[in-house]
Amino acid sequence: MAELLCVQTVEQLREQISAVRKRGLRIGCVPTMGALHAGHLSLVEAAKRETDFVIVTVFVNPTQFGPNEDFTRYPRPLEKDVNLCRQAGVDLVFHPEVETVYPAGSATYVEVPGLSAVLEGVYRPTHFRGVTTIVLKLFNMVLPDVAFFGAKDFQQQLLIRHMVHDLNVPVEIRTCPTLREPDGLAMSSRNVYLSPDERQTALALSRALKRACEESAAGRSLAEVRHSMQQFLAQQPGVKLDYATIVDATTLREIDEPVPQMVALIAARVGTTRLIDNMLIPPA
Amino acid sequence: MAELLCVQTVEQLREQISAVRKRGLRIGCVPTMGALHAGHLSLVEAAKRETDFVIVTVFVNPTQFGPNEDFTRYPRPLEKDVNLCRQAGVDLVFHPEVETVYPAGSATYVEVPGLSAVLEGVYRPTHFRGVTTIVLKLFNMVLPDVAFFGAKDFQQQLLIRHMVHDLNVPVEIRTCPTLREPDGLAMSSRNVYLSPDERQTALALSRALKRACEESAAGRSLAEVRHSMQQFLAQQPGVKLDYATIVDATTLREIDEPVPQMVALIAARVGTTRLIDNMLIPPA
Repeated sequence: MAELLCVQTVEQLREQISAVRKRGLRIGCVPTMGALHAGHLSLVEAAKRETDFVIVTVFVNPTQFGPNEDFTRYPRPLEKDVNLCRQAGVDLVFHPEVETVYPAGSATYVEVPGLSAVLEGVYRPTHFRGVTTIVLKLFNMVLPDVAFFGAKDFQQQLLIRHMVHDLNVPVEIRTCPTLREPDGLAMSSRNVYLSPDERQTALALSRALKRACEESAAGRSLAEVRHSMQQFLAQQPGVKLDYATIVDATTLREIDEPVPQMVALIAARVGTTRLIDNMLIPPA
Repeated sequence: MAELLCVQTVEQLREQISAVRKRGLRIGCVPTMGALHAGHLSLVEAAKRETDFVIVTVFVNPTQFGPNEDFTRYPRPLEKDVNLCRQAGVDLVFHPEVETVYPAGSATYVEVPGLSAVLEGVYRPTHFRGVTTIVLKLFNMVLPDVAFFGAKDFQQQLLIRHMVHDLNVPVEIRTCPTLREPDGLAMSSRNVYLSPDERQTALALSRALKRACEESAAGRSLAEVRHSMQQFLAQQPGVKLDYATIVDATTLREIDEPVPQMVALIAARVGTTRLIDNMLIPPA
């Protein structure tokens, strides 16, 4: 098994990157908040297929959590994550301290207005500003050729694509499919918060999305499918819905008429855990 | 005389940069809005001393102009600029179209709160957002090792330093001294707007700054020096003062007690032309 480098400072990281660049290798980056699961590892697999040197960043980014969210509680199993990375053939894990990433006086942020204000942005108003800022910072630290994100965070990957395009960031973005448990639950680091009962309740999200795809394929209108999805979720005990809708996958605008790329998105709370999930609606 | 490359598209630019990088050359970048004067050329000289391949960008950036400012009127003597660059030994001029830099749908911006809201930010509320965004975009296009800015735009260079630091942008920033006409007027592309009479009136700015340095050296308090500078400018016919103050050069906070780095800054209108100037106040 190849050696796995673990670095904590930007200087150490830059030194390694510089050596890798001199060898002419293409760098792949998988930015994560740790608590790695099979979804993350599928991103690593994609990175290994497409690039020569795979860097996983592990950083629970405080600026993307709201004041009453789960920043403190978010799982941080670093040793386990490092072992998973080693087994997966990752070349380097970058796991900086908060003070390294945000030294005193840090103030600059990157914002994608419009796209950051809808859906998740309604419920987490400063979330995406935190996401785009940390992702740009990580790109500037890692200088990857390609970066890999999961489709589960659909709005996030779209915002990152827009940011990269708008700011001419020289990184290619890949979005990899959501991985699911055998019963359909989208993999998420936050699933560990769920009690066994909540774990069952949480299946409502993927079921509602699957129904939406089926109903759309059966010819029902988008308005009907959306309504049906919302009704289904409203009837699930223990599910507190934030939103369930169908939008244009390129603009995130709610649609009633079909467009080439459509996505159904759900956010809901189960107990104290907030979950999101989405599925692309195949064109009729 | 070495060949001067002129490119207009990001693709052409990236192709050239890639070839330069392969030769192991260090890239210096001088971002400008064109209408080059000796101040710009001193930045080119600094870039030539420190780097191997000097790129001048010429782009009148619409997003840093307010709705009632001089975007349309701003001088655009491209052929003259290219000739000046050729004579100065610049290696590449990048002069993109507005549509190349801001394709339809561009929305992302970079903001440095706090520092962007004071001084110029009071009179030009969206100016620095436009500046930091375009500079980051140009850095991502040019991928320079070092970038050179003039001290005349004091707040601008400070904001860019903060942005680069906060976002981990892998570019070193150099700030080069303001160049002045023999009579003291700070060189500026906007000086061409001045009538001969206004040109004389405009000398009040550099004179007020010089007096401030002298009075401070003579032991007067910063509050006295500031007041004297404001009084002097208020008495100059044809000068409409926006601000004249002394601030901490690292935080832009107005100061009454000396700090290690202090700068006196003035913004004023002479006729329809808005001028800025500044001088570092030597510590007592």
